[in-house]
Amino acid sequence: MKAKILNELDTASRVVFIHPSDGDPRDPVTRMAQVSVDQRKLLVEVVFTETLVAPGEIGFPPALAEQLHVKPTKPVSIAARMRPASFDVIMKKYDHKPWSNDDIRLILDDIYHENLTDLEMAAFTLAIQYENLSMEETESLTRGFAYHGTQLKFNEPVYDKHSVGGIAGNKVSLIIVPIVAAAGLLIPKTSSRAITSPSGTADTMEVLANVNFTAEEIQEIAPKTRGMIVWGGQLNLAPVDSKIISRVERPLGLDPESIIIASILSKKLATGVNHLVLDMPTGPGTKIDTKAMGVQLAHKFVEIGRRVGIEVECALTYADQPVGHAIGPALEAREALETLMGQGPRSVHEKSIELAGILLEMAGLTARGEGANLADDILRSGKALAKMQEIIEAQGGNPQIRPDDIEIGQYTAELKAHADGYIAHISNTAIKRIAREVGCPMNKKAGIMLLHKAGEFIEKGTPLLRIYATKESDLDRALKVASSSQIYRLEGMVLERVSATAVKE
Amino acid sequence: MKAKILNELDTASRVVFIHPSDGDPRDPVTRMAQVSVDQRKLLVEVVFTETLVAPGEIGFPPALAEQLHVKPTKPVSIAARMRPASFDVIMKKYDHKPWSNDDIRLILDDIYHENLTDLEMAAFTLAIQYENLSMEETESLTRGFAYHGTQLKFNEPVYDKHSVGGIAGNKVSLIIVPIVAAAGLLIPKTSSRAITSPSGTADTMEVLANVNFTAEEIQEIAPKTRGMIVWGGQLNLAPVDSKIISRVERPLGLDPESIIIASILSKKLATGVNHLVLDMPTGPGTKIDTKAMGVQLAHKFVEIGRRVGIEVECALTYADQPVGHAIGPALEAREALETLMGQGPRSVHEKSIELAGILLEMAGLTARGEGANLADDILRSGKALAKMQEIIEAQGGNPQIRPDDIEIGQYTAELKAHADGYIAHISNTAIKRIAREVGCPMNKKAGIMLLHKAGEFIEKGTPLLRIYATKESDLDRALKVASSSQIYRLEGMVLERVSATAVKE
Repeated sequence: MKAKILNELDTASRVVFIHPSDGDPRDPVTRMAQVSVDQRKLLVEVVFTETLVAPGEIGFPPALAEQLHVKPTKPVSIAARMRPASFDVIMKKYDHKPWSNDDIRLILDDIYHENLTDLEMAAFTLAIQYENLSMEETESLTRGFAYHGTQLKFNEPVYDKHSVGGIAGNKVSLIIVPIVAAAGLLIPKTSSRAITSPSGTADTMEVLANVNFTAEEIQEIAPKTRGMIVWGGQLNLAPVDSKIISRVERPLGLDPESIIIASILSKKLATGVNHLVLDMPTGPGTKIDTKAMGVQLAHKFVEIGRRVGIEVECALTYADQPVGHAIGPALEAREALETLMGQGPRSVHEKSIELAGILLEMAGLTARGEGANLADDILRSGKALAKMQEIIEAQGGNPQIRPDDIEIGQYTAELKAHADGYIAHISNTAIKRIAREVGCPMNKKAGIMLLHKAGEFIEKGTPLLRIYATKESDLDRALKVASSSQIYRLEGMVLERVSATAVKE
Repeated sequence: MKAKILNELDTASRVVFIHPSDGDPRDPVTRMAQVSVDQRKLLVEVVFTETLVAPGEIGFPPALAEQLHVKPTKPVSIAARMRPASFDVIMKKYDHKPWSNDDIRLILDDIYHENLTDLEMAAFTLAIQYENLSMEETESLTRGFAYHGTQLKFNEPVYDKHSVGGIAGNKVSLIIVPIVAAAGLLIPKTSSRAITSPSGTADTMEVLANVNFTAEEIQEIAPKTRGMIVWGGQLNLAPVDSKIISRVERPLGLDPESIIIASILSKKLATGVNHLVLDMPTGPGTKIDTKAMGVQLAHKFVEIGRRVGIEVECALTYADQPVGHAIGPALEAREALETLMGQGPRSVHEKSIELAGILLEMAGLTARGEGANLADDILRSGKALAKMQEIIEAQGGNPQIRPDDIEIGQYTAELKAHADGYIAHISNTAIKRIAREVGCPMNKKAGIMLLHKAGEFIEKGTPLLRIYATKESDLDRALKVASSSQIYRLEGMVLERVSATAVKE
C-alpha cells in the first residue's frame, strides 16, 4: 500500500488510518494491525476513514511516520496482528511459574521490537509489581536490558556514581566526577535529564558545557580527561526499560523494585562500568521511605551487581531535606562550582567527598574508611576544580566560568516564616512542585534557593526561601502553589503551615 | 466548548480532537482528559489537529458522540484528568492487602462510570488473575456487579439454568426451559448471544421467536407462560463486568476464576434468581480442562451462591465432543424441536432431563435422584413441547413451526474419514473455527451436522460431518480451515489427521 503522512494530526498514539474498502471496520480483530516499512514493524491501532485517505493508502500521523521512517515513496504493508509467543511466556507468571533466562530474553525482544500492546506490557510489569522477581530472574532482566542498544567499551576499569533519585538539589555528581577523575580514575558519567524533579545532572551540567556526545566521542575524550558528564538519553543505552517506563510505569505511577535494579545496573553494564557507588537518598518523599527498606534494596543491588560483574557499594544518604541550598539547573551549577572552589554548603561538600571516597577506596587508592579524607584533600587542593575546568573545556564549555557568570531568573519572591521555631523538615515534594511551576528543568534559569535549612532556629518573618523565575506569570503560579503547600515543618508547632506572604522585589 | 462530530472518522477508540491553541500538545498530562456532556463524563485521549477542528471546538468520532449523546448544539467541556482514588485502592492488592466491600464498590463504581483507563482496569483484572480473590472478596464482587443496572423482580421463587460455556451444540436450554415451566416452576431465562462460539442460546431461540424484550415485558409475560428464553444483552443486567471483559479480558485472552463466578452469579442476582443449576462442560478445549478443576470451581459457585442467597447446584457435564449433532443457530433449533418431539439425539435428551431434573428436585417436586425421571416423563408426555409452543407464541413466533420448516444453508460439503477407526474425540476448538468461517452465529442458516460421534467405528471414506453455508465462498473458506484442523481423533491412529476431501453436492 501507499503511505500518506497526515501532517494535520498531532498525536503520540500509534494509530494509522485506512479506507474502509481496505478492511472490515466491523471486525474487532482488524482494529489492531502490524504495519511494516522496510524492515521496521510496528503494532498500531487502525482507524477507518473515508476522507483522510483514499483506497490503497495508509495514513500516518507525523510522529509515527518519523518513528517508522515512512516516506510517501516507500511501500508499506499492513497485516492483522497475531499475538506473539512472548505473551504466553508473560502469562506463565500468573500460573506462578518462574521465568527462565530465555523467557525474559524473548519478552524483552518483543518489547524492543514493539510487538506487544500496552496491555500486554502491563501484564509483564504488573506481575513484577505483584511479586518481586527472584535473584536469578533479576539477573536475567539486567542482562536482557543491556543486550539491546549501545555498548560503550574502555580498555581499563571504569568507575561510576549513580543516584536512585528522588531528592531535590542533588548536584553532587558535578563535584564527585572531578574529584575521582583528578585521582586518575576513569569516570565517564552518563546522566539523565529530569522528568519530574527540578534538575537532572545532565540539565545542570548543560549550564556549563555541552552534554550531547556520541559513543565514539565519549570513548575518545573520557580516557584523556579521565572524567565526563554527558547526557545518557541519546546514547540508546539499554533502551528497553524506557519503553516499559513510558508506556506502563509512568501511566500507572509504578516503579517495581526488580525493574529499578535491572534498569540501573543494565545501563552500567552497557557503559562498561566495573565499580559503582550508588547514592540512595532515604527519607519521606523520596523513593526509599525508610532505612530498613533501603538496606534491603541495597543488598539486592550489591548481589545483582556481583552476578553481572559490577562491584557495587550503596550509600543510604540523608534526605529529610534537599541537598545544599540551590534547586534548579543554573542555581545548582553555581553551587557546584562554589563547592569546587571551597565555598559551597557543608552538606554538598560532605556528601560529595563521602561518595567520591568510596570509589577511591574501591580503587585501592586508600584504606577503607580513609576515602573521604583523600577526596577532601583533592577537593581542598584545587585539583578537583582544575579537573572540572578541564572537563568543561573538553565538553565545549568555558573553563573559566565563575559562579556569578551564570545567569539566573530576574523575577524573585521570598517566602517568610509565619511563626518562630526550629526547622524540623523541608518537604522534597513541595519543593519539586514549586520548581515545576517556574519551569524547571526546561527553564534553566528558574529555581529556588533555600535560605535556611533543617536544624536552624528562625524567627517569625524570616525569609525561608527565594523563588527565581524568568516570567512574572511563572512566579505568580509558583507562589500560588507554595501558599497551599506545607514546605517547612517547624518543631513545637505540629504541622504548622508556613505559607506565602511574598513581597516581590 | 463546542462539539463537532467528525463523521469521516470510524474508530472505536475513545479519542477526541482539539485545536493546539486549546491545550499544550507537548504536555503528556493533557493527552488524557475528561470530557463532560450534560451529566455524562468520559475519559478520552486527546489528539491535537489544526485541520479537523477550529479553536474552541472538540471533535468527536461518531461512535463516541453517540455514547456521550453529543449534539453539536450541546456545550461540552474538557479538563485534565486526575487519577481517581479507586486506583490507589486497586494498588492495595499489589501490597498484598485484601479489598474490603467498600473498596470493591469504589472500584466498580469507577469502572461503571468509565473513570479508569484500560491500563488501570488491567491492574485490577491482572491482580485477580495473579491470585484468586477470597470468598469475602468474591462475594463483594458479585454484589458489586449486581448493584449497577436493571433489577428484575418477581413475586415468587425463580428457577434458572446456566452454562459456563465452552462447548459447541449446547442447545439444551431450549428443552430444559419448557420442561421446568411445564412442571409449573417460573424460569424466565435470560441468555447470551455467541461471541466466539457457533451459537448462543439467544441466537438459537431467535430462529423460532423474538428474543428482545424489556424488563417490564418479561415481568409481565413470564409469570403467565412460566418460562421465557430471551436475550439478556440488551437488558443491562449487571453491566460492569462486560466493560472489564471487553476492555481487558478479551484483548489479553484472560478469564480469571473470581470474575467468572461473580459475572454469572451477579446476573442471576439481578434477574431475581433463587435456584440455579449450573452446567459446567468439562473436557479438553472447554473452559474447564479437568474434572478436579471443575469440582473445585463448583464448590466456589455453591458457596458464593449461598452467601448471596442463591441455591446453586453444579453439574460437571461430558464435553469431549459437541452436544448432539447440530451446530449453528438454525440446525440447533431444528434439533431442539426434534428432541422436544421425542426424535432428538440421545445426548441432547439425556443432558436436558438431567439438568431439568435437578431444578425439579430443588423445587421439592420429587425426591433427590428422581428429578431426571420426572423430567423425562414431562418430555415424553408432550407437555414440554406444548409448553415450548406456548412460549414461542408468547414471544411472537409461530408455535406450529416444525423442524423441516426451518431454513438452512443450501451449500453443503462433507468431510470424509481418511482411514478406519473408532472416533475417540471430536475437537470443540476445530468445530468452532469451521463454524466461524461459514458465518455462525450471525448467519443463522450456516452450521455443521456431525454425522458420526465419539465411540462409533467408521470406515475410511465414511462422511464424518456436513458443513452448511449460504455462500459458496464461505464454504470454500471453511473447507480450507477444516483441511488444516484436527477435528476427529481416531483411536489406534495417534493424532491421525482427517482432512477435507469434500465433494460439493
